[in-house]
Amino acid sequence: MSAPGSGVQGVVDLNGDVGESFGRWQLGDDAALLPHLTSANVACGFHAGDPLMLRRTVELAVRLGVAVGAQVGYRDLVGFGRRFIDVAPDELTADVLYQLGALEALARSVGGAVTYLKPHGALYHAVTTDERQARAVIEAVVAYGGLPVLGLPGASLLRLVEEAGLPAVGEGFADRSYRADGGLVPRSEPGAVLTDPAEVAAQAVRLATSGAVRSLCVHGDTPGAPAIAAAVRSALAEAGVAVQAFS
Amino acid sequence: MSAPGSGVQGVVDLNGDVGESFGRWQLGDDAALLPHLTSANVACGFHAGDPLMLRRTVELAVRLGVAVGAQVGYRDLVGFGRRFIDVAPDELTADVLYQLGALEALARSVGGAVTYLKPHGALYHAVTTDERQARAVIEAVVAYGGLPVLGLPGASLLRLVEEAGLPAVGEGFADRSYRADGGLVPRSEPGAVLTDPAEVAAQAVRLATSGAVRSLCVHGDTPGAPAIAAAVRSALAEAGVAVQAFS
Amino acid sequence: MSAPGSGVQGVVDLNGDVGESFGRWQLGDDAALLPHLTSANVACGFHAGDPLMLRRTVELAVRLGVAVGAQVGYRDLVGFGRRFIDVAPDELTADVLYQLGALEALARSVGGAVTYLKPHGALYHAVTTDERQARAVIEAVVAYGGLPVLGLPGASLLRLVEEAGLPAVGEGFADRSYRADGGLVPRSEPGAVLTDPAEVAAQAVRLATSGAVRSLCVHGDTPGAPAIAAAVRSALAEAGVAVQAFS
Amino acid sequence: MSAPGSGVQGVVDLNGDVGESFGRWQLGDDAALLPHLTSANVACGFHAGDPLMLRRTVELAVRLGVAVGAQVGYRDLVGFGRRFIDVAPDELTADVLYQLGALEALARSVGGAVTYLKPHGALYHAVTTDERQARAVIEAVVAYGGLPVLGLPGASLLRLVEEAGLPAVGEGFADRSYRADGGLVPRSEPGAVLTDPAEVAAQAVRLATSGAVRSLCVHGDTPGAPAIAAAVRSALAEAGVAVQAFS
Repeated sequence: MSAPGSGVQGVVDLNGDVGESFGRWQLGDDAALLPHLTSANVACGFHAGDPLMLRRTVELAVRLGVAVGAQVGYRDLVGFGRRFIDVAPDELTADVLYQLGALEALARSVGGAVTYLKPHGALYHAVTTDERQARAVIEAVVAYGGLPVLGLPGASLLRLVEEAGLPAVGEGFADRSYRADGGLVPRSEPGAVLTDPAEVAAQAVRLATSGAVRSLCVHGDTPGAPAIAAAVRSALAEAGVAVQAFS
Repeated sequence: MSAPGSGVQGVVDLNGDVGESFGRWQLGDDAALLPHLTSANVACGFHAGDPLMLRRTVELAVRLGVAVGAQVGYRDLVGFGRRFIDVAPDELTADVLYQLGALEALARSVGGAVTYLKPHGALYHAVTTDERQARAVIEAVVAYGGLPVLGLPGASLLRLVEEAGLPAVGEGFADRSYRADGGLVPRSEPGAVLTDPAEVAAQAVRLATSGAVRSLCVHGDTPGAPAIAAAVRSALAEAGVAVQAFS
Repeated sequence: MSAPGSGVQGVVDLNGDVGESFGRWQLGDDAALLPHLTSANVACGFHAGDPLMLRRTVELAVRLGVAVGAQVGYRDLVGFGRRFIDVAPDELTADVLYQLGALEALARSVGGAVTYLKPHGALYHAVTTDERQARAVIEAVVAYGGLPVLGLPGASLLRLVEEAGLPAVGEGFADRSYRADGGLVPRSEPGAVLTDPAEVAAQAVRLATSGAVRSLCVHGDTPGAPAIAAAVRSALAEAGVAVQAFS
Repeated sequence: MSAPGSGVQGVVDLNGDVGESFGRWQLGDDAALLPHLTSANVACGFHAGDPLMLRRTVELAVRLGVAVGAQVGYRDLVGFGRRFIDVAPDELTADVLYQLGALEALARSVGGAVTYLKPHGALYHAVTTDERQARAVIEAVVAYGGLPVLGLPGASLLRLVEEAGLPAVGEGFADRSYRADGGLVPRSEPGAVLTDPAEVAAQAVRLATSGAVRSLCVHGDTPGAPAIAAAVRSALAEAGVAVQAFS
């Protein structure tokens, strides 16, 4: 995709989940992870994230020049948004608008803005196959005025996002094993998650240079997340892949 | 305030609480009350109000030309925001921003906007005397970009609002008895709440023509609220007082 | 089941949902409905029911001699427990134990006790087909020491309840239309819900004398619920059906 | 209190907070702390503690022979129960009963029982001076059937507990600085919290041998809590102080 010898082998975004603490409960190390990201998926309070911590997280992202995305989820603190909830479409649309606006106000108050949306946890998976919930999320984004949507390439959500005239951004997972057909190896199977930084970095380079995805997701709630993110960035730099936000 | 014989004896706003249902639980009759109001204090989800119902309520307000205000409260569904919570100032500022933004997104999605803020319940009372919490609320409004604030005349909040350069709107209570010193008779005393529509209407006219308040509050969660609001509007019309939103 | 001329045409229990208010939000009229019931399905705080109101409701049930059952549900106030949540079995078992114990303490404090369990809303429906969640509920009841379980006859839950050696109590719905195969007409179809008190009462008598069910459910959150329950009791009395709690 | 040369210099209980995680969010290391305790203050879900984790924590306590106490708190997850809430007495009584029963059912399901009560966080402090809330807590314990109550010596709660005929257990803080008058140095002042294990252990011995308190509290949510608890136990053993549960 670039001329031989140009030295630039494409461009990729690095996104990661932040803002997942809640009150007294810390999760992840946002201050350590954010400097390695170009896009920050910030929780919006329904599955994680209290307003004060979210405001501070967004403030740090803005200061570091990291794009702020709304990571909307089911209203389920105890389940961390990881349990499917059979939310009716009109309720889900309103829930997404509510979360988007809440984060936008916190972002605006520190000189930033929400520039994309990414569904979280069980909602992320539901909208890959459940068209009703996928359309409900998109209706919210359209009613909000439109934003790019980040999600799994080739699944319902992103197809519908494109049909709605919104930017659809497919992402790859540097630390997950892929099957031959391009799907992810389920977490229940051995080897589903890659933990060796060198292996993760190598897969990041493969995904980035393949042109198949515009963004790479780095999981933030694992202990070594910042170190892995750093390894990924180094490897991309060595491979001549530019790292910048898509939004 | 108007020339003799002009027929116009001043202008007043009528505000009332709406959006106080939550999921399966209905409270008040927003569809019946809204047509009588010029300003709708809409709950924002912390003490009442689920996103879907809030969206519909704001949609109706917008269609009727009623101004939409954010009625922010403590995070306390079971207490309906009526119990004081000793929230730290930075937490309160973030909580208010979160609620403001959430309602703004719902309002924007139906062609409206949030045009003022009014604290709810125990927070309403706290900010009349607790300068720490009052300043925290104001900090949120300033960080949000500035909005008029509706509250009790002569109390901490509105004084600080004016010092912050924001419009301060004092309100009177058509259905509450006043003491000689201008304070409200506490609800625990007999006769604190007026229930006779004629009496309420007469007090509304007195308050509106006195020039002491720019807005009159009509309580929305009492069974006869819409009828009382209608009586107030008729009496104001007869007295030549124009009714229009302050924001 | 009784000799001709004995005058007693069987016995049935009348159960209804109570304790479904939450803080400021009222739902149903427990004081009016309870005198018509023999078994009170009391919410336990996860989908409805704040502790103070629950305590008062249980106190009234105890005074009236109405059996107190724990109506356990998903942790979903905004959805009133009516949305399926994909709760893992071990979480669901703990959730049910938590709710059972909470209600038991409130009941004990007013001289009563929890004498049966009935799942609520989406959990009620889930356990008719989802064996994983059904077994999780039963595991909680067994770990608690054992209680009768009230549910839909012929479905997963009650079969598994019997296999676990616990009393299984099948219930019929006096106000719902049945299909020829014994299933309920879905609420989405016309005529699914019967609203004419005479028709409801007639169906109650049919169900009670058929011997197919040991309990009849009277819905409590519809406006005319107490009147319908009264009509059902009159019709059962006329038909010589004794009404008494199963537990 | 024991004859010279007997080798036994009194007896003390070691209590610590456990069960303070919530869903995805871990707090403290219960498995590492519990073996050092004789009494486990287990959160009950209002300020911390999801049912599944609570059940597992109680199971471990029962297996280790550690007494299980209900650490009841305000309903305030985001504030971790550390913010005063102006809860009305009848609401607070019902809230405490609800929490007590919920934990009791989880404990019973693993062969244990709740054997005492300790208020948490802001409620712990409120009941030292607020007689209304203190009486409300005690009313719950009495209505529950009676349990020992653990709290600050010399404050409202324990005085009222004794007047109610319940066992009152005063506790000392091994890791907090005391003023000359016996009160605690406020956390806002330098040196309020002791972090040197040797210093904490020495103070534990002083408090235990003084006879002033029947229990010592070890804070569980600090990183080095298990090590500090181990140091305290060693020092008590060396000083000939027996460590056993009061309940």
